[in-house]
Amino acid sequence: MTKVKMIAEKIHAMPWEDKPEGLDVPVWRHSQNPIIKRNPAKGIARIFNSAVVSHNNEFIGVFRAETIDGRPHLHLGKSENGLNWEIEEDKIPFVDEEGNSFQPPSAYDPRLLKVEGTYYIIWCTDFYGAAIGVAKTDDFKTFVRLENPFLPFNRNGVLFPRKINGNYVMLSRPSDSGHTPFGDVFLSESPDMTYWGKHRHVMTKGGYGWWQNVKIGGGPAPIETSEGWLMFYHGVTGTCNGFVYSMGAVILDLEEPSKVKYRSKNFVLTPEEPYETTGFVDNVIFPCATLHDADTGKIAIYYGAADTYVGLAYTTVDEIVEYVKATSEEVADDAELGRK
Amino acid sequence: MTKVKMIAEKIHAMPWEDKPEGLDVPVWRHSQNPIIKRNPAKGIARIFNSAVVSHNNEFIGVFRAETIDGRPHLHLGKSENGLNWEIEEDKIPFVDEEGNSFQPPSAYDPRLLKVEGTYYIIWCTDFYGAAIGVAKTDDFKTFVRLENPFLPFNRNGVLFPRKINGNYVMLSRPSDSGHTPFGDVFLSESPDMTYWGKHRHVMTKGGYGWWQNVKIGGGPAPIETSEGWLMFYHGVTGTCNGFVYSMGAVILDLEEPSKVKYRSKNFVLTPEEPYETTGFVDNVIFPCATLHDADTGKIAIYYGAADTYVGLAYTTVDEIVEYVKATSEEVADDAELGRK
Amino acid sequence: MTKVKMIAEKIHAMPWEDKPEGLDVPVWRHSQNPIIKRNPAKGIARIFNSAVVSHNNEFIGVFRAETIDGRPHLHLGKSENGLNWEIEEDKIPFVDEEGNSFQPPSAYDPRLLKVEGTYYIIWCTDFYGAAIGVAKTDDFKTFVRLENPFLPFNRNGVLFPRKINGNYVMLSRPSDSGHTPFGDVFLSESPDMTYWGKHRHVMTKGGYGWWQNVKIGGGPAPIETSEGWLMFYHGVTGTCNGFVYSMGAVILDLEEPSKVKYRSKNFVLTPEEPYETTGFVDNVIFPCATLHDADTGKIAIYYGAADTYVGLAYTTVDEIVEYVKATSEEVADDAELGRK
Amino acid sequence: MTKVKMIAEKIHAMPWEDKPEGLDVPVWRHSQNPIIKRNPAKGIARIFNSAVVSHNNEFIGVFRAETIDGRPHLHLGKSENGLNWEIEEDKIPFVDEEGNSFQPPSAYDPRLLKVEGTYYIIWCTDFYGAAIGVAKTDDFKTFVRLENPFLPFNRNGVLFPRKINGNYVMLSRPSDSGHTPFGDVFLSESPDMTYWGKHRHVMTKGGYGWWQNVKIGGGPAPIETSEGWLMFYHGVTGTCNGFVYSMGAVILDLEEPSKVKYRSKNFVLTPEEPYETTGFVDNVIFPCATLHDADTGKIAIYYGAADTYVGLAYTTVDEIVEYVKATSEEVADDAELGRK
Amino acid sequence: MTKVKMIAEKIHAMPWEDKPEGLDVPVWRHSQNPIIKRNPAKGIARIFNSAVVSHNNEFIGVFRAETIDGRPHLHLGKSENGLNWEIEEDKIPFVDEEGNSFQPPSAYDPRLLKVEGTYYIIWCTDFYGAAIGVAKTDDFKTFVRLENPFLPFNRNGVLFPRKINGNYVMLSRPSDSGHTPFGDVFLSESPDMTYWGKHRHVMTKGGYGWWQNVKIGGGPAPIETSEGWLMFYHGVTGTCNGFVYSMGAVILDLEEPSKVKYRSKNFVLTPEEPYETTGFVDNVIFPCATLHDADTGKIAIYYGAADTYVGLAYTTVDEIVEYVKATSEEVADDAELGRK
Amino acid sequence: MTKVKMIAEKIHAMPWEDKPEGLDVPVWRHSQNPIIKRNPAKGIARIFNSAVVSHNNEFIGVFRAETIDGRPHLHLGKSENGLNWEIEEDKIPFVDEEGNSFQPPSAYDPRLLKVEGTYYIIWCTDFYGAAIGVAKTDDFKTFVRLENPFLPFNRNGVLFPRKINGNYVMLSRPSDSGHTPFGDVFLSESPDMTYWGKHRHVMTKGGYGWWQNVKIGGGPAPIETSEGWLMFYHGVTGTCNGFVYSMGAVILDLEEPSKVKYRSKNFVLTPEEPYETTGFVDNVIFPCATLHDADTGKIAIYYGAADTYVGLAYTTVDEIVEYVKATSEEVADDAELGRK
Repeated sequence: MTKVKMIAEKIHAMPWEDKPEGLDVPVWRHSQNPIIKRNPAKGIARIFNSAVVSHNNEFIGVFRAETIDGRPHLHLGKSENGLNWEIEEDKIPFVDEEGNSFQPPSAYDPRLLKVEGTYYIIWCTDFYGAAIGVAKTDDFKTFVRLENPFLPFNRNGVLFPRKINGNYVMLSRPSDSGHTPFGDVFLSESPDMTYWGKHRHVMTKGGYGWWQNVKIGGGPAPIETSEGWLMFYHGVTGTCNGFVYSMGAVILDLEEPSKVKYRSKNFVLTPEEPYETTGFVDNVIFPCATLHDADTGKIAIYYGAADTYVGLAYTTVDEIVEYVKATSEEVADDAELGRK
Repeated sequence: MTKVKMIAEKIHAMPWEDKPEGLDVPVWRHSQNPIIKRNPAKGIARIFNSAVVSHNNEFIGVFRAETIDGRPHLHLGKSENGLNWEIEEDKIPFVDEEGNSFQPPSAYDPRLLKVEGTYYIIWCTDFYGAAIGVAKTDDFKTFVRLENPFLPFNRNGVLFPRKINGNYVMLSRPSDSGHTPFGDVFLSESPDMTYWGKHRHVMTKGGYGWWQNVKIGGGPAPIETSEGWLMFYHGVTGTCNGFVYSMGAVILDLEEPSKVKYRSKNFVLTPEEPYETTGFVDNVIFPCATLHDADTGKIAIYYGAADTYVGLAYTTVDEIVEYVKATSEEVADDAELGRK
Repeated sequence: MTKVKMIAEKIHAMPWEDKPEGLDVPVWRHSQNPIIKRNPAKGIARIFNSAVVSHNNEFIGVFRAETIDGRPHLHLGKSENGLNWEIEEDKIPFVDEEGNSFQPPSAYDPRLLKVEGTYYIIWCTDFYGAAIGVAKTDDFKTFVRLENPFLPFNRNGVLFPRKINGNYVMLSRPSDSGHTPFGDVFLSESPDMTYWGKHRHVMTKGGYGWWQNVKIGGGPAPIETSEGWLMFYHGVTGTCNGFVYSMGAVILDLEEPSKVKYRSKNFVLTPEEPYETTGFVDNVIFPCATLHDADTGKIAIYYGAADTYVGLAYTTVDEIVEYVKATSEEVADDAELGRK
Repeated sequence: MTKVKMIAEKIHAMPWEDKPEGLDVPVWRHSQNPIIKRNPAKGIARIFNSAVVSHNNEFIGVFRAETIDGRPHLHLGKSENGLNWEIEEDKIPFVDEEGNSFQPPSAYDPRLLKVEGTYYIIWCTDFYGAAIGVAKTDDFKTFVRLENPFLPFNRNGVLFPRKINGNYVMLSRPSDSGHTPFGDVFLSESPDMTYWGKHRHVMTKGGYGWWQNVKIGGGPAPIETSEGWLMFYHGVTGTCNGFVYSMGAVILDLEEPSKVKYRSKNFVLTPEEPYETTGFVDNVIFPCATLHDADTGKIAIYYGAADTYVGLAYTTVDEIVEYVKATSEEVADDAELGRK
Repeated sequence: MTKVKMIAEKIHAMPWEDKPEGLDVPVWRHSQNPIIKRNPAKGIARIFNSAVVSHNNEFIGVFRAETIDGRPHLHLGKSENGLNWEIEEDKIPFVDEEGNSFQPPSAYDPRLLKVEGTYYIIWCTDFYGAAIGVAKTDDFKTFVRLENPFLPFNRNGVLFPRKINGNYVMLSRPSDSGHTPFGDVFLSESPDMTYWGKHRHVMTKGGYGWWQNVKIGGGPAPIETSEGWLMFYHGVTGTCNGFVYSMGAVILDLEEPSKVKYRSKNFVLTPEEPYETTGFVDNVIFPCATLHDADTGKIAIYYGAADTYVGLAYTTVDEIVEYVKATSEEVADDAELGRK
Repeated sequence: MTKVKMIAEKIHAMPWEDKPEGLDVPVWRHSQNPIIKRNPAKGIARIFNSAVVSHNNEFIGVFRAETIDGRPHLHLGKSENGLNWEIEEDKIPFVDEEGNSFQPPSAYDPRLLKVEGTYYIIWCTDFYGAAIGVAKTDDFKTFVRLENPFLPFNRNGVLFPRKINGNYVMLSRPSDSGHTPFGDVFLSESPDMTYWGKHRHVMTKGGYGWWQNVKIGGGPAPIETSEGWLMFYHGVTGTCNGFVYSMGAVILDLEEPSKVKYRSKNFVLTPEEPYETTGFVDNVIFPCATLHDADTGKIAIYYGAADTYVGLAYTTVDEIVEYVKATSEEVADDAELGRK
């Protein structure tokens, strides 16, 4: 039994490898990374920054598929073990609430999770500029787009896995119209997934270290634990030759999730392996999903690598929560209610 | 009686000058412009981009006051005739919904209007970045801030003077974190002024001409007319030596105000007079408010000039609506429901 | 009789004012500047950067007219005295060589001159980017566009008033796709006004002084004199608040006009008057045409002022040639044949 | 015999490998790539972006050689089989039309082809800025530079292998003075390789996909086929960490080559292999030459990889033409005669 | 007698005007501004940003003279009353310590003061980039350049009028190689005017207000008073159309002048008059010198206006010191010893 | 015995490998590079750009350690053979001259050398911006920070190993506040390591080749030889995808070290190996230290690779001096006394 309790569904077949002997870090890589390589399906050049869930004793994923025309779309995939994936060649056929075809011009960086029995996909869509798109499905056959929750320009929308104080809650990262050299995480609430408000500032880029000094963005859906909402996120620094994306971890207050309780001052994973340092965009680790098993405390983190591959990394809830608490720093006004 | 009917309250003492003989333009300047000059009150260096309403047989205004420390705040002002203004030396004392002092770090470019008996101030606030702020007052003594309707980065929030299809409706212009070299107008709805959604794209920068080819932003609250919502707005072009802000006019669909019915391809006022071409920011005409009298069809437009002065211009509803219709052009997908 | 001989047609009614007493500069302003003010014709907001010739005992001009939609086009104008101009409200109706309407999407900064009995207009056109456009007319009624001589991006095309060594000769200033923070003057030849080649570098920005250290561009058509081709041009410097355009003067070799013989290190006119320092673009003097009378040696220079007005300045061929020679500096490889 | 007929000379010893089993793409790599590695000759650090022809039963190439001082020049090389190359240590000794030494300050990205019995080299030269240079040779001993065809700033000059309608025809890609974040392909004609005109816009960056949304540039000399001029070209997209150069294919109209007949919406080769993703400039595939054999329909494409290596890829005329037609999209006004 | 004591020499003929009735600001303009207008001497287009001292019962000034080639140099001027100036047409003939001519390539923004009986000129020179230059003179005939105190890039060098703790003390504002969008004031010490060290950070841009949020730079030589070193300085804010330079005031600790004692949160003069808002660079007030009379407490401030004119403003030591103390704010770590 | 005499201490155990057979370059890599890999010590992600000396029959190094929070600090390391290093987990505990703890906020790119019996560390520190920091130690236990020698912004401070003409001498590379797209090397003198002056320009970026056309910066401490001061340095060029850092070599005049005697026009090492082309910053070779043995003439150069690893390269004094002389070019005014 774990010291830190996760509130989560049981995973039928958790992908897993124990931490290698002698490795003194809180998160470790799957030994056969990358689990999805270049040209994984006809017409698809690269898959990365992708989201998975357990569903009916198999795993279903929504994948950022960069097709051979260079435009990103969302494709479904299935897997028995979370490691070997069959990717559909056609993109997800979204419809509007009247059932008419309603395809986003482009779609990338999806998150996928279940809230109150319904699956939600949240992605970066093109709404006269980068913005958050949302759709729901119950069966992974019909995908109904809801209203875009926010105005552009925005990226990295992350929905919480349950309502808090009666409202749906979503994180997002307001951006500019380009590659965005800044960015903090905000939180918004909705009674109905249509109208959103009570916006709060949650986390700021920066801190003492430099790995997250350019911008940050939410990652996989937060994991509910007895210590708060555990979230992996990406932090970006800038070199003379471009950005470097690493993974960090933060714990938000359970009832007031716009308050940061603990935030590790260190990255927990940074590009080191060839599939992370070299690709369409060098030096990117971009986590978008976790599988996490409440009984064992095991957590598997799916992350995009170099905008080219899908990688997998592991930790346990006890290990990562202890690490975040032990290495926590207070950054600016992260611990305040983010209202001005 | 006017051909085009305005739905509006009667103005007790409409500021007015007839169009000068021989002038063949749809909008003309007040002869004694600027009506507010530099150093209008102790500690205030410049007033511009400001909003006025008729209230209890006088005029009340909310003014962008640039104080001698260079920071903008909102100050109240009063006037008998809409031309001579007494500006309060202290900024407006906003409170939150519990009545506690809740001052925005900075505040500028206010709009002011009455919706269902309550006055609303909408301005550009600092919510970890430029964003829309909202407050309401019934008596111009207590000013209660509501939730910020949108995430940053956003400017030029413009509320409609009545609910449409049961919802409050607000225009805004998503921006970046700086001076923003782009910008279109969007529309959002709210059942309660707290949660906002159903975001739609309304107007795009551009068109055949060049005066609005960099960005555009909503202006005074739209005026309800029998032809649609008449709105003055600003359009910006870029020269090698900076931006030039002119005023345009558009008519939106009454029931589906995210659709443009007519949009003049020409500016209706552009910087020409010394108080418009020279100041803290050269070459700026920035309309923020109108007084408009339903009986006579007279419209007085208050505009910021050169980020330094307040100017006044006149038109009539018949003249401007006819002009917009006669010079209308369709720009991109302005006439579509702006959803993607 | 002048010391320096100009080869030019007689001007029937030369606009002229003598140099004011005590003024010790080589070029002086017309006392009633600007000669064309804002809103000079219906639908035209500003006229500047414009070109004139003497034709049939009157003056004809081709004007950069910035219409009230902000887009520039070329309009004809006529004048008895070169000072008072009637501008046509419609833009010039260009046709292609088959006589079909062939309007440039936009057109600005025209030059106008007669070569071997035919009038040529050269302007900055939109050929999938800023480029040089050319048309010819014999009667100022039919205007036939020729092939664009060069690929984009290019501005400030200036044709010589006669063939040299059997070829037409044109100066131009290769640019980038925006406001262009660099720029030198090149020369090209054509046997037929269709195919162009033998491109040479003529003049470089820079020199000891700073007034032309950002970019330069040819001005009015060069004037043939016994000392060489006399050309006024614009030179641009950059301040923290934008560009400043001044006027310089250069003398090119008669037979090898890609060689600079003399080039004044000083500007000969710089923005000082309100109509030059303040307007749509502050601080611009942009010469596009001269009237010059061989008998008297008088030269009248038409220049755009602040992208808003037309100004007029005077000199004499003796005075300006002496000044250029007396203040000449050699800049980089200007005196070489500009081939690499 | 091929379905699509190529008009080309026979290649004495065509480099070739069949398509690997199971590979479902129209272009495949040589298995021993890169065929030229780092430090291929004394004083030369890298060779890439290079052009080859069959000549007298051997292959001759003109290579972009980046010497150990970092400056690019053109060097000759010879090969028996098109795979193993001997590179000359000295750069090509260009002369002017009088026979005097006339070296370009720098030279890169050459194309090489035979037109009417004479070999032409076209490259990017330094003519007071990046511009197209041209030279001819009959024997690969004497290399005579012709006039630079265009003003700067320009890159990617590509001559057609025969006159069309009596004129030489060249493609080029107008640029800015730096790394150029935009770029379309234009076409120009010349009766004599000295004077150029009748400039037309051919292809625009963009299209539905994103791989060519920043800029494009012509590649190897177009191949004449019964379906039109087949040309490989490069298309560039921009990531937060820099540009990515892929290869596309287009078919131009035989008699009006400024009209696009078919243009594949997909790239046909994109950086995937280590020698393409990693080098002096990461993620570059830059095709500059083909060998193509009319009898067999085999095409070998030489391309620069990562500005560091020379790679080789294969296709057949039937396969690539079918692919381009099957995946063709119309982009903007590509199919129009590109005149404005 | 003044409440605040100034330690300064008596001024023989202090330029002066009393504060206009009813004006409630601490600094007021000379009524006949600008005191130096355009074209003040042959070959000089504009004079601004200039320094003056009282010397032998007249006033001597060192002026930034922008010559008609656009390059700035330092010229001497003389005046009986500090208002009417005769400017020398030739630039100051600097020599090195061996007496050889040693002219800076360019020279601007001079300060001038007497330290221990010797006059020092400090200016912005071109030392392979903008840097501080220093020269001394005893008689205003021989001007000996000393070693440049600092490496580039640096501007706004300001020497203190006496040694402190045995060392010469100089303020400066490290910059970048262009127009510099940032900038704080540092202090350095020297035992001998040759070697400099003990660098300290003094004042940061920023504060609550916005008028000095882009950069700041020292102004006239600090005035010793019983309350500390009184210094006027310039603060810069950025608009969408460029920088605005205002004047502020600060009081530094007498013995530890890297510590700020009081710093007014408000500007004390900002561009309002036409000669300040319009010129070569719009919206610039740039103070470089004071005349200050210990007996009367009168202070006359010379400032450059719009990089075009010289303006004059007045205050008294009692009034300005009281104002700075009354409106003081603590900015960041200004009050600390600026060492890291 | 060597032809060129080095003035240096004997190295007890020089790391060394002979040049590989057939390799025709003046500098060659250690065969087991990189000698320090990722994660070399707990909490340290990468070590690079580091400095070593021989001390008491072992080697001591000061290392740029990029910790897992992304911030760089200086850590000590020890080695028996110069190849295998033990790195301390804690950063160097600097104190001020009073013995109080005085840690720089960040510290990187150290140089380390002995001058007159004392060891000096020079690094890039954060002194309200990037600047040079200096400390001394006698025992590698107590590290006393001296005054920062220069104002910001500056990087690449390099001290000479002995006084010249009685003064300490330091090179540095003035920079801007960011990644700095320019940069030349300057020299400064100090009688006491506290006050610095007599600044001179030494070397300019540029030259005929392109590998050093963006910026240059000093490398290891200059080596005294009979031919002059031999210094390795880095030169940077810019591609469309970022900077490339190579290593060059220069010989400065012994008595007037601001004069360049010889400067190789070629790089002597450029990124080619995977550990140089791929890492946190791709394509970086950054030399910071040498071990050099006077008896044998052997030189071992330590360089940072890709901001991720430490590499080692070898040459001999005879070989490198001969190479620099043989390939020397004069660049601009490098050979002059750099004073303006």
